[in-house]
Amino acid sequence: METGAGRVKLTIAYDGTRYHGWQVQKNADTVQKRLGDALCGLFNEKIDVTGCSRTDSGVHALGFCCHFDKSSPFPTAHLPAALNARLPQDISVLKASDVPGDFHARYDCKSKTYRYLIYNSSERSPFYINRAEFFSGSLDIGKMRSEAESLIGTHDFRAFMATGSKIEDTVRTVYSVSLEKASELICFEICGDGFLYNMVRIIAGTLIDAGRGKAKMPMSDIISSRRRENAGKTAAPCGLYLKQVTY
Amino acid sequence: METGAGRVKLTIAYDGTRYHGWQVQKNADTVQKRLGDALCGLFNEKIDVTGCSRTDSGVHALGFCCHFDKSSPFPTAHLPAALNARLPQDISVLKASDVPGDFHARYDCKSKTYRYLIYNSSERSPFYINRAEFFSGSLDIGKMRSEAESLIGTHDFRAFMATGSKIEDTVRTVYSVSLEKASELICFEICGDGFLYNMVRIIAGTLIDAGRGKAKMPMSDIISSRRRENAGKTAAPCGLYLKQVTY
Repeated sequence: METGAGRVKLTIAYDGTRYHGWQVQKNADTVQKRLGDALCGLFNEKIDVTGCSRTDSGVHALGFCCHFDKSSPFPTAHLPAALNARLPQDISVLKASDVPGDFHARYDCKSKTYRYLIYNSSERSPFYINRAEFFSGSLDIGKMRSEAESLIGTHDFRAFMATGSKIEDTVRTVYSVSLEKASELICFEICGDGFLYNMVRIIAGTLIDAGRGKAKMPMSDIISSRRRENAGKTAAPCGLYLKQVTY
Repeated sequence: METGAGRVKLTIAYDGTRYHGWQVQKNADTVQKRLGDALCGLFNEKIDVTGCSRTDSGVHALGFCCHFDKSSPFPTAHLPAALNARLPQDISVLKASDVPGDFHARYDCKSKTYRYLIYNSSERSPFYINRAEFFSGSLDIGKMRSEAESLIGTHDFRAFMATGSKIEDTVRTVYSVSLEKASELICFEICGDGFLYNMVRIIAGTLIDAGRGKAKMPMSDIISSRRRENAGKTAAPCGLYLKQVTY
């Protein structure tokens, strides 16, 4: 019997500027709410969507993943277009695929890749408002890259966790990093098995300090100190993009 | 005597989404008006700004040029920062330079380069809303590039002029073109001594037709026909960027 029921994984992109992050909140517009509304409109029933992680207000996604269960038939290949017709233009479903009933967007995640963009020029660009951190001073790209490379490996990343976060196990593995400058745009990417709260934004702030020659100590010493105050400021949310999630 | 008077050339970038083009209009927000207001606030007198051309509603600029005359002293090197502090974030002064009193942003222009962006993917991107024409179908990039190359040279471009335009002399010279695809983004650039009204957008629409295999005839025949109906549709303003002006 074709029931049409089953679990579906969605890959979505969004410009987070207008949203209070991913997670549904009372009295706030969020990406999870908008996607839930679109699914409800399409399937004519309330559908819960489970995301791979939370993202903060103003943070963007190029390839966020989530899952939901459908109880009525709908061709999976047509889901992106059908949902995009019901979603605002700043949220787009890129891909939909059928997954086993025990697939979980959050718990089955093997790695995440984040991108952090810095617009580095004497004057700001109209095209990177809300899309990149603006930094007008001179930055040593080679220094930033070599410091970024110190992050690779399994470390206790407590120094890069937002104060007040209650996570106990602060050991994570960073698989790879890259840092490139093309014209005025510096693109930092980091892939790891998981990230602490605000970890990528604190790392970005620390790399900007390194590039300015204002770091308190080398990155490897900041890591081993395990002290938040040795790292840099938390860089702006608008520069952060969840780029890819693997399972 | 240091009067501080003199003509200044500004290079500006803007996201045209919110504006009714460059040119001041009654009851409409325009880039020229915003820049005039910022100059008026800074110099405490009404200042007229003369642009290198008009741009339509929704069209963007990466390097638009204009000039104005100042009657009181202000260090030219500090003008970008001083004006940007008074301008909305979607308009940015990139550069200011002193020019001779007979310099004219419009009449002295030797060449202009326009960029046209097409976002070519099955689903739309939240990051190119209002920044590129969206086209979801398959496009033959090699065909588009070879057709674009037919534009190079001195031709009567009447076929690519908006109906109703009253220009008599429709001969223009295209110095160079390029068309590249990187991931989902197709970037077409064209440099010439001048452009007719809507010329770049009509050329972009014609290139999309060529890429889809829907062109009525080869580009060279469209040019020689001098008939608007043989060219493609006028592509959306949001894909167009005035990239560079030379003097």
